[in-house]
Order: sequence, then C-alpha cells, then structure tokens
Amino acid sequence: MKRYDNMVKNAAGRMVPLEVNGEPSIPFKGLGKYIPEGCKHAPKIYSSANYPPDGNKLVPSLKEALIKAGLKDGMVISTHHHLRNGDLTANEVFKIASGMGIKNLIWFPSASFPCHESIIKYLEDGTIGCIEGSMNGPLGKFCSEGKMKGVAVLRSHGGRYQAVQDGEVKIDIAVLAAPTSDTFGNANGLRGPAACGLLGFALADSQYADKVIIVTDNLEPFPCIPWQIQGNYVDYVVKVDSIGDPSKIVSGTTRLTKSPDRLLIAEMSARFAFEAGIIKNGFSFQSGAGGTSLAFAVFLKEIMKRNDIKARFVRGGSTQYLTAMLEEGLTDFILDGQTFDLEGVRSMRNNPLHQDTSPFTSYNYHGKGNFASMIDIVVLGATEVDVNFNANVVTHSDGYMLHGIGGWQNCLNAKCTMLPIPLFRDRIPVIKDEVTTLCGPGELIDVIVTERGIAINPIRKDLIEKMKNSKLPIKTIHELKEEAERICGKPEKPKLGDEVVAIIKWIDGTIIDIVRRVIV
Amino acid sequence: MKRYDNMVKNAAGRMVPLEVNGEPSIPFKGLGKYIPEGCKHAPKIYSSANYPPDGNKLVPSLKEALIKAGLKDGMVISTHHHLRNGDLTANEVFKIASGMGIKNLIWFPSASFPCHESIIKYLEDGTIGCIEGSMNGPLGKFCSEGKMKGVAVLRSHGGRYQAVQDGEVKIDIAVLAAPTSDTFGNANGLRGPAACGLLGFALADSQYADKVIIVTDNLEPFPCIPWQIQGNYVDYVVKVDSIGDPSKIVSGTTRLTKSPDRLLIAEMSARFAFEAGIIKNGFSFQSGAGGTSLAFAVFLKEIMKRNDIKARFVRGGSTQYLTAMLEEGLTDFILDGQTFDLEGVRSMRNNPLHQDTSPFTSYNYHGKGNFASMIDIVVLGATEVDVNFNANVVTHSDGYMLHGIGGWQNCLNAKCTMLPIPLFRDRIPVIKDEVTTLCGPGELIDVIVTERGIAINPIRKDLIEKMKNSKLPIKTIHELKEEAERICGKPEKPKLGDEVVAIIKWIDGTIIDIVRRVIV
Repeated sequence: MKRYDNMVKNAAGRMVPLEVNGEPSIPFKGLGKYIPEGCKHAPKIYSSANYPPDGNKLVPSLKEALIKAGLKDGMVISTHHHLRNGDLTANEVFKIASGMGIKNLIWFPSASFPCHESIIKYLEDGTIGCIEGSMNGPLGKFCSEGKMKGVAVLRSHGGRYQAVQDGEVKIDIAVLAAPTSDTFGNANGLRGPAACGLLGFALADSQYADKVIIVTDNLEPFPCIPWQIQGNYVDYVVKVDSIGDPSKIVSGTTRLTKSPDRLLIAEMSARFAFEAGIIKNGFSFQSGAGGTSLAFAVFLKEIMKRNDIKARFVRGGSTQYLTAMLEEGLTDFILDGQTFDLEGVRSMRNNPLHQDTSPFTSYNYHGKGNFASMIDIVVLGATEVDVNFNANVVTHSDGYMLHGIGGWQNCLNAKCTMLPIPLFRDRIPVIKDEVTTLCGPGELIDVIVTERGIAINPIRKDLIEKMKNSKLPIKTIHELKEEAERICGKPEKPKLGDEVVAIIKWIDGTIIDIVRRVIV
Repeated sequence: MKRYDNMVKNAAGRMVPLEVNGEPSIPFKGLGKYIPEGCKHAPKIYSSANYPPDGNKLVPSLKEALIKAGLKDGMVISTHHHLRNGDLTANEVFKIASGMGIKNLIWFPSASFPCHESIIKYLEDGTIGCIEGSMNGPLGKFCSEGKMKGVAVLRSHGGRYQAVQDGEVKIDIAVLAAPTSDTFGNANGLRGPAACGLLGFALADSQYADKVIIVTDNLEPFPCIPWQIQGNYVDYVVKVDSIGDPSKIVSGTTRLTKSPDRLLIAEMSARFAFEAGIIKNGFSFQSGAGGTSLAFAVFLKEIMKRNDIKARFVRGGSTQYLTAMLEEGLTDFILDGQTFDLEGVRSMRNNPLHQDTSPFTSYNYHGKGNFASMIDIVVLGATEVDVNFNANVVTHSDGYMLHGIGGWQNCLNAKCTMLPIPLFRDRIPVIKDEVTTLCGPGELIDVIVTERGIAINPIRKDLIEKMKNSKLPIKTIHELKEEAERICGKPEKPKLGDEVVAIIKWIDGTIIDIVRRVIV
C-alpha cells in the first residue's frame, strides 16, 4: 500500500502513479497509442561447461535448489498457476525462505488462489514484501485492506509475458511445478498424478528467469516429450512426493450452470452471435470455463449442428464441451491455454489437433501480432460494466479486489467481445455509471447480454444494423441500467481510502487504473 | 581474405587472429575453459499495434517484403538450409538485392550447397561482401582461392545458434523458406511440395533477427500446426510458386554404401561399440546420413535385435533406417534435427515419438546444457585425422575448403565419439602428423575405425581396458598412419598462402583455427 501525492490522469481519465514500488511507470495512453522503444530483456549467457554433461540436474531438495540458485533478500520469485487451487509448490518456496530468514521477496505468480492463503503469514513476517500477480480470494482481501507492504501489480496473462519479455519484471528464480519432467528439466503437464494439461503460463519464466528450478513428482527418463518447458533453460530439478492436490487442479467434469437466468443469458448470447453473422463456416470463438460460458458453448454447438457450420478453431481453456466439439468434427482445432477438466487433459495428451498455446502465442501485445485479435467472438465475464461499456473484472462493487485478470484484457481484442452478465448480483446492479476499477476500455467491448436485454456498443454500428430486425430484446445500456436500478435501487459507492493497494496494467504495460484501500 | 600481421597462438597451438571482419574475436582457450560473460542478444521490442489485427501478413512479393524490412547496404541476411541442394530462395534474395544495387551484404546461411553457385556472381559484383556459414562445393572453392572480399566464418550448427543468441551475429533480415505456412507466419516443414521435415536450423533466426520474412509455396488457413516457426516472430509472409526442387531436398530413399571396405569399417564400428559395452538397453546413438554411417546403423540394428537391446532414443538426421527402428520398437524415440529422405518426413509428420529438435535443444553450448553430451555414442566422418586424434572436417588435404561443419563439432561431446574412416582416399592417407585444419580437438575423439585397424585414443584407458581381449584389430594411431604411408607414401603438404580466407569457430564462439588461401 502506498499514498501517492502526485498521481496523473491517464487517457482513460483515471488517476495513476508515475512510479510503482520504486520503478517508473507509464500511464495508459489510449488503445494502440503506446509504442515501446528499446529491447527485450537479455538474460545472462550461461555455458554448458557449468552443467552436468550427462544432463542430470537433480538436487536433493527444493531448499538446496533455492540455495544453489542464490536465494537472497529482495529477489523476484516466480511460480505458475496451472495447478490452480491444488498448488503445493508456492507455499513451500516461501516456507523455506521464511525458515532461512530471507526478507522482502517479490512473489510473481501467474495467478494466486485460495490455496495460497498461508502466504499471508509470509507477507506479515516480511518474507514477502509484495505480490505482483492476480490474487483470487484471501490474498486479495488482505491486499485490499491495505495490509501488504508493497503495491500489488495486476497484469493479464499476456501482460505478464510482455512484462517479463520487456524486462519490466526481472525474475531471479522461477520455481516451476511440473507434472512430468526428466532430470534435464524437459517438462510437461500431460502425465503424472498432478497432470494439468500444459505449462504455458510458465513459458516466459523459463525463457527469461536467471535461474529455473523444476519441481516434479513424476520423473521420466530423458527425453520427456513433449518438452513444453525446455530443459535447456533449466538449472535444477527437484523430485518431491507431491506437487499438488489432483482434485483441485482439474475438475473431474466441468458443469453447466443450472440457473434459469444464466441459461437464458447464454442462449441469447449464442443467438445474437448467429444472427449477427459471426457464426459461419471457418469462424473461431473463445469462451471460458464458468457456468454461463460453458452454456454458451453448448447453445452455440446446437446452432452449429443445426446449420451445418464448422469452426476453424476454438480457443480453450478447454473442457469436455470443447473436446466433444473437436471429436465430433465441429472444429478443426482447439488452441488451448489451459485445461479445466480431465477430458481436456486427455484430449491434449492424445489429440494432435488439440494444440497447447502460451501467453506468447496467444496474448503477448509486444510481439509481431498475437492470436487474440484473430478470434471472431469471445465471451467473457465481468464484475461491473458502466454506461460507456467500460468493464471491471478484479474488484467487486464494495471495492474488494478478489479476482485476477487472467486472459480477460487480452481477449478484448477479439473481433467481437461479448459480456453475458446478470443484470444484478445479490440485488446489486452490475451496470454502473462508472466502474469501480477500469480493467477494459469500453471501445473494446461490443455487446452486453443480460437476462433482461442486450446492449450493443453504439460504436458498433455494423452490429446494430445487422440486428435491427432481430426479435432479441436489444436495448440501450442506459435502459438496462435504469431497469436494474428500478428493481434494486441505486447502488452505494464503496468506502475507499486514498491509499493505492494495487495498480492494473493494460496489455501494453501502461497503467490503466489503480485499486484503492477498502475502509473496513 | 585478409593478411594478418599479428595473429596469436591459441590453446590448440594454432595461429589465429584477434579480429575478424572488424569485430574482435577470442582465441580458443581449451575445452570448457572459456566461460562467457554478459547477456544474450536483446532484439527490439515490437508492438502488435503495428501488425495487422487479422493476422494476415501477406505481401505480394519477396522484393516488396525485403523493401518493407528495410534492406540496405551492409546488412546481415540469413537463410536456412533445410531445402539443401534444392533451395531456390537464397539465390532469389541476392538476385533482388543485386537488382536494387545493394552492396556489401553479409550472407549468414546455416549452410550453403552447390545449388548456390550463382551466389558467386553476387560476391563478384559486390552485392555480398562476405559469407558467414558453411560452404559446400563451389562457394568453398571460390573462397579457398582468396576471391571473397571478407573472411568467411565457419560455425557448427550449435555454434551458429550460440553466435546468434549471444549477439555475435546480429541478423537484420531472416528470409526463411517454409514448406507450409499460414498468413500469420506459423510455419513447418512437414507438408507441401517442398516438405523437408522440420525447420530447426531457422529457429535462432526467427527468435533473434530484427525482421523475419517467411517465403512459402504452400499457404494453409490459420492455424498452421505444428508451428515449428512461430508467427509471433514473423513480420511478412510471401507466397511464391516454388521454394525448392523436391528431388534435391530429400532423397526418395537413402542408400547404404556398397563399398566392401566401407561396409567392413561400419561393421567393425558397430562390433566395437557392442564389445565396449556401449550398446545396451536404454542407450542412445547418433550417426549421419552418409553411406558408412547408414551401414553402421544397419549393423547396429542387427546387434540390437540379436541381443534383444532397445535404445531409449536415437538422434537423426533421420532416414528410412532410423524410422524402421522406431516402428519396429527398437527405440522409444527419434530426436531429429533434419530429415534426409521421404520416410523421415513421413515419420516426423505422423509419429509423435519422432520429435523434431533444434540446434538450441541439441547443440547450443551456451545453454544450460544441451543434448549432445548425453549421447552414448556418435559416429562421424572426417577428411583428416592426426596422430593426436585431432580431426578436420572442412578442408581436404590439398587445402581446399569444400565442406561445412554441420553438427560435427557439437557431436564430439558425446560420451564416445567414433570416426569410421578409410585409411586413405584416392591414395592420399587420411591419418596425418597434423591436420590441415583443426576442427575438433583430439581430446574429444575416442576411436578411429579404418578398414585396416582400430585406434583408441590413449586417454580412453577405460575403452582400452574393455577391448583388451577383443578380436578386433586394435592398433595404435601411429601404426595405422605408418601402414597408410607404406602403401601410399608420405603425403605432400598443401600449397597455401599466408592470407586467411576463413576462420573456424569452436562451439563456444572462440577461434580454433584458420583456413589459408590455396595457391592455385
């Protein structure tokens, strides 16, 4: 947490600092306006002369690996979140560091989950000074209340790759849990008791970190194929009993929503996409693993079958619903960033048309293009939307930061971005005059679908024209907002202090907004 | 060509310059002795804002792509050699450059072949000032005779990756022929009329070049999978009628030697490996695509079948002989750097156990280890060997530099390096007092197998001990040399000038030897 005296207004009208945790930062300048200068991060050159010729990089324990890697105060330590709420590795790293008396580390996870609640004590005892990464649940609450020493930095998956590639974040030690690895450090997520599908979120860490430690509970003889993580980037390999709790890594099966309202929203979303001419042969789509998103995919599939339409590719997070589409010939490929259920893991392991991707291929804005802008339609969630179609995905209306950004910001670059959301949650309207936290600029959000009507962004005149004879309940966003307020009343503003607990990066590394302390 | 007045003696006793083409260089310091300092090359950061959102990077012609990429005098232009003697792309690049009046380019191919003979006229007209890369045939002759303006720099496949990674060579424009590509630039070598298997030699170019152009004759709709080259590194895609002559890219079938002497050498080599205890369950080997090497693999296979031995992996260059081993269950995997025949291409396309590799994974000495040192036995050729087991692979005994290094230097790091070579060629002994050009230090070369006897390097006391009761004709290298000289006479020294036409890099980027001008 920090109180800033000299914030500036960025191109989205939000007040943001020019410095975060001692490093200069750049205010958001508008979409596509900030063009980086300079060069990518240049990791140190190492020599094979200093690595075992037989390729065996095993060390007896994670502690020993951390010591060999030179763990010391103030370092940036990264982990990935492919083991989601079943991850055992990150907690272990900081338990060891705390035991060694190390202070003021920066934890740079690709995301954190409720299973990382024990990290709070390492924030409290000074082992960790700051978290740069999405916080889901308890850590977000802790941070929101101003209890973290540093200012949190939240990035999208693509923004995290960008920050590492560009040297904004220099990882000293990457500790990468791997469901399968050989002793050279070639690793993948496809096999073993903690199989999670792929390891794409750890790609940047492996490529750019100074030292890389693989932690696995499933050693295979060299070569471990495919090498989603390449051993040529790896310093040490550690064998442990278990890297994660399988039941919390992937679901046995993913479940559709049963809520009649959400099913209605999902169905209207799919109908909209079809009527707007987006769902046609060779199209592509991306939707998440939430109940409504899954239901969207199911309704979409019905439309595709009924109209004999085949997709060229669908983006995962994959689930049994996507793998069924692939296997039934409704899409040529799944391009997948993470697998959410056992079917997703099985399909990625066995089906070459189920291709693993990474934030580099899919989302890195500081590449020579990326996949996100090539998707015909993406279906995403949001905690709040405002009358200018700006959207929030990290804070609730009470100001608490309880969610990560994930690939959400990156996905907004799709040709059509649709947010199927309920008009209110717990009697709090979701459509506001102004979002509490700006995560995605309204210019990139095309359609809001609620159970009581659909609003099209006025800048999408093409979509408005296409839908002018539709029987779907097309309304203005103001009409939707007024309808919600008629039912629930005007929502109260959250009680926030002046201090900044977190900043939100845009996909180009600029700061789009801040998160203020919640007054408890 | 250059005359140096102040060369220094390196750790191998060879006189080498401290500067090459205006850049400082480091003399060879001994095996594993040179430890690099500093950081990898940091390419410029680009932004997706400047690339087409729909991913379509097609430009109408190679000339237009080169102009957009900013082609100008003095630039470093790279190409790969996966199309071998069927490549049409490199010639086209320099034809265009010459037509534009561009001067003094540095051509940085991963290798050149007789099909590149037309490049000579661009060396003569000043379009190209220098070639940094292996030269097979006509270009090597041209260079050997001192006709090239600059000094050639020869590197191994791994050394080329190392040089690019470390920023020794900064590629301005990489022009990468791709048998299959999408308009985003995702590319592979598996399909299309010029299918060559894989594109690993172009990996460094794609990752580190400032501008990357894909040239293809087989466009597929996005996504082109697998993406051996990732479109996220690519600036422009060009569609042409043909990138290469299929009949010269891969053989229909690869052929074993029919020479009785060479068959004998191959058989003795395989017997030696077995008797020395190297051929056992879980072992690994690498042998090339030359007639003797292929015959070695065939004899080895017989031994394996007879003794019920299975390899963990075999390294390619793959051929029908290796793919048959994979399909018959004699090895778990092929780890392949290039495919030499149609069976190799087919197998790599269809069999997930036939894994493509790159000079990064296999050979890069400035990585955190690489595969080369993990191979149990490697079988290689040589133009000359000397009594200290030093070997030459680039020049003939007449001083002409007619061959590239390929992966040869890198492979010397295997646990056992064996050179099956004839005792003489065209009545010129192959074993010398001193090699004309030092490419591989004798410390790394363990066994010389000739049709008249086998010499074990005296430093390999373990091998000498294991073979002490063998019925194979184990001799000393001096005995072999004397035997050759009894038959052919003492060979004449080549007639060489003082000028340096090329330098030979070791795998760590230091200079191990020079090549002098041949006096015609």
